[in-house]
Amino acid sequence: MTGNAVRVAVLGLGAMGRPMARRLARDLPVTVFDPAFDPGSGSAAGFDPADVTAGRDVPGITVAATAAEAATCADVVLVAVRDSEQVHGALFGEQGAAAAMRPGAVVVLTSTVGPDAARATAARLAESDLAFVDAPVSGGPARAGSGDLLIVVGAGEAELAAARPVLDRLGSTVTVVGPRPGDGQSLKAINQLLAGVHIAAAAEAVALARGVGLDPAVVIDSLSKGAAGSFMLADRGPRMIEAYGAGAQVRSRLDIFVKDMGIVTGIAKDAHVPLPLAAAAQQLYLLGERAGLGAADDSTVVTLLSPPHESAQDSAHDSARNSPAPPD
Amino acid sequence: MTGNAVRVAVLGLGAMGRPMARRLARDLPVTVFDPAFDPGSGSAAGFDPADVTAGRDVPGITVAATAAEAATCADVVLVAVRDSEQVHGALFGEQGAAAAMRPGAVVVLTSTVGPDAARATAARLAESDLAFVDAPVSGGPARAGSGDLLIVVGAGEAELAAARPVLDRLGSTVTVVGPRPGDGQSLKAINQLLAGVHIAAAAEAVALARGVGLDPAVVIDSLSKGAAGSFMLADRGPRMIEAYGAGAQVRSRLDIFVKDMGIVTGIAKDAHVPLPLAAAAQQLYLLGERAGLGAADDSTVVTLLSPPHESAQDSAHDSARNSPAPPD
Repeated sequence: MTGNAVRVAVLGLGAMGRPMARRLARDLPVTVFDPAFDPGSGSAAGFDPADVTAGRDVPGITVAATAAEAATCADVVLVAVRDSEQVHGALFGEQGAAAAMRPGAVVVLTSTVGPDAARATAARLAESDLAFVDAPVSGGPARAGSGDLLIVVGAGEAELAAARPVLDRLGSTVTVVGPRPGDGQSLKAINQLLAGVHIAAAAEAVALARGVGLDPAVVIDSLSKGAAGSFMLADRGPRMIEAYGAGAQVRSRLDIFVKDMGIVTGIAKDAHVPLPLAAAAQQLYLLGERAGLGAADDSTVVTLLSPPHESAQDSAHDSARNSPAPPD
Repeated sequence: MTGNAVRVAVLGLGAMGRPMARRLARDLPVTVFDPAFDPGSGSAAGFDPADVTAGRDVPGITVAATAAEAATCADVVLVAVRDSEQVHGALFGEQGAAAAMRPGAVVVLTSTVGPDAARATAARLAESDLAFVDAPVSGGPARAGSGDLLIVVGAGEAELAAARPVLDRLGSTVTVVGPRPGDGQSLKAINQLLAGVHIAAAAEAVALARGVGLDPAVVIDSLSKGAAGSFMLADRGPRMIEAYGAGAQVRSRLDIFVKDMGIVTGIAKDAHVPLPLAAAAQQLYLLGERAGLGAADDSTVVTLLSPPHESAQDSAHDSARNSPAPPD
C-alpha cells in the first residue's frame, strides 16, 4: 500500500457487486471481473451491462478478462458472487484470483455462503499467505451504491485493518461480530432467518386479508406500527400488493432466499437447533422457485398463498368453492 | 343515557379486564363481574384480587355477584373474557348479562374470539334488541391501564356511537375496519398471525445464536433496527434472554397464542388460504403448553428450541454430542 491508494478488485457484478464497485471507484482504483455475468440482474447502479460484456472500461473502473488479471495488482479483493461454488471458482478455479494475488493481500467475502464455507476459504487462502475477512452485507443494491450497507464482520485485527478502507466506504454500520472467519456469516444467517420468515409472514397476512375480504393495504397500514410490525411487513407488504398489479420491479430475487434458508437450516441442523418456522419458510421459497418465481421479486411468494385472480369477493360468487356462510 | 354519564359493566377481570375497568372508573360509573376470576393472572393495574373474591367494592368500582347484576343498569357492557366459551357464558349463561340488559344497550366485545363467534354473538343479541360492537384490542395490560390500546372495530355507525365513550377512553387508536361484526376480529386475527410468527421467529434467532456460540443479546441488538427487525424481536428478544435467568415476569401468557393461532388457522382453513408458518407457530405454542409453559410468559417458547442448561460452549465440551468439527 506504501502510501498510495488501496487498489481494489471486485469479483462479481450482480445486483450487489455492481453498485459496490461503482461506490468504491469514486475514491479508489477498481478493477472488476464477473465470473457469471448476468445482464438481467438489474442495472440500478448505472453500470452498463454492454460495457462489461464487451470488456470495455467504464469511468474509473477497469474491466478485466479473468479473476486472476483483476487481482494481480490488488491490495483488497472483494468477492461479491452468489454462492460458495462461485466463491471457490473465482478464487481457486482456472484463472482464479488467489494464485495471482501478492502475499499479504486480503480477500473480503461479502457473499452469504455460511460459516463453514467461509472457514474453508480462509484456511485455503492462509496456505498462500493471503488474509481473509468474512464480511457478509445486508441492505440491498440501493444502499450498496450509497455506501449505506450493514456489514457484519468476522476477522482478526490485522486483517480488518487491511480491509477497512473498503469496508468503511461500503457500510454505514460495520459490526465486528468476532475474530474468526465465519462469525460474520453466522450473524448474517440469523439475519436471513428473520428476514425470510418475516417476508413469508407478511405474505400470509396479505393472503389471509384477501381471503377474508379485507383490503390488504388497510391491513398493512393498520398493523405495521404496532405489535405486529416488522421491517419486512412495511417494505415487502406494499410490494406484495404491487405483485397483483402490473409486474413489480425485481429488487431482491426470490431464489436468494432459497439459498439463504438452505444455509440457515444447514447451520441449525449441525448445531442441533430445531427451527420449525425457518424450515416452513424454506419450503415456501422452494415452492416459489418450482413455480417459476426464482428470478422474480421475493414479494411474489404471496401469489403462492393467494393467486392473483382470486379474492374473497370472487370466491363468494364461485359456487364450486366451499365458502363459509355469510353472516346473517 | 339521558345526559348522565354512560354506565359501564365490565365482565372479565383478567390481565386485560382489570386495567380496563380501572381506566374507565376514572370517569364513568363501573360495575364489574368476573366469570372466571383467577387471582394468579396478575395485578399490574392495582386491582386487589382479594376485594373481588370477597365481593368488596374498590374505589369507583362496584363489584357484582353475577353478570346479570353487573349489567342491569349498564348502557355499555364491556366483555373482556378469555375465549368464546366464556363470552357465551357471560352473556347467555345462567345469570348472564343479556337477559338483564335494557333494550338498546350495547355489548362491546374486546376479547379475541374470531369472526364467526363475533357474528353469532351479534345475531343472538339482536334477537333481544341489544346492539353489538366487535372491538378486539391489542397492546397488553400496561397500555390498557393508560388508555393506549389499539382497538380494531367492526360495527355499524349507531352501535359505534353508543360505544364511543368507552372505546375512546381505552384506545389511543380506534380503527374502524368495517361495518360488520367480525371485521374487527378478522383484522385482530391477522395481527395475531404476525405477532405469533414474529415471536417464534425471534425464538429461533435466539436459539440459533446460542447454538452457534454468538451472544444472543449482541445478535438482537445488531439486527433489531435493520431488515431483520420486528417489534417482537426488540420486545420479546430481551425477555427470552431473561427467560434463561431468574424467572421472567409474566406479561403475556403463552396459552393466549395457543388460542389465537387456533383462531388464525381456523379462519384460514375456512377461506382455503394455506399458512405454513402460522401453522408451524401454532404447533410450537402447543408444544410449549404441553411442556407446562401455558401460564408462563410467551417468550419462554425459546426454551423449547434451546434448553436453558445448554449453550454452544457446553455442547463443545460434551463428547456425547455430535458436534461439528471446530474450524482449523
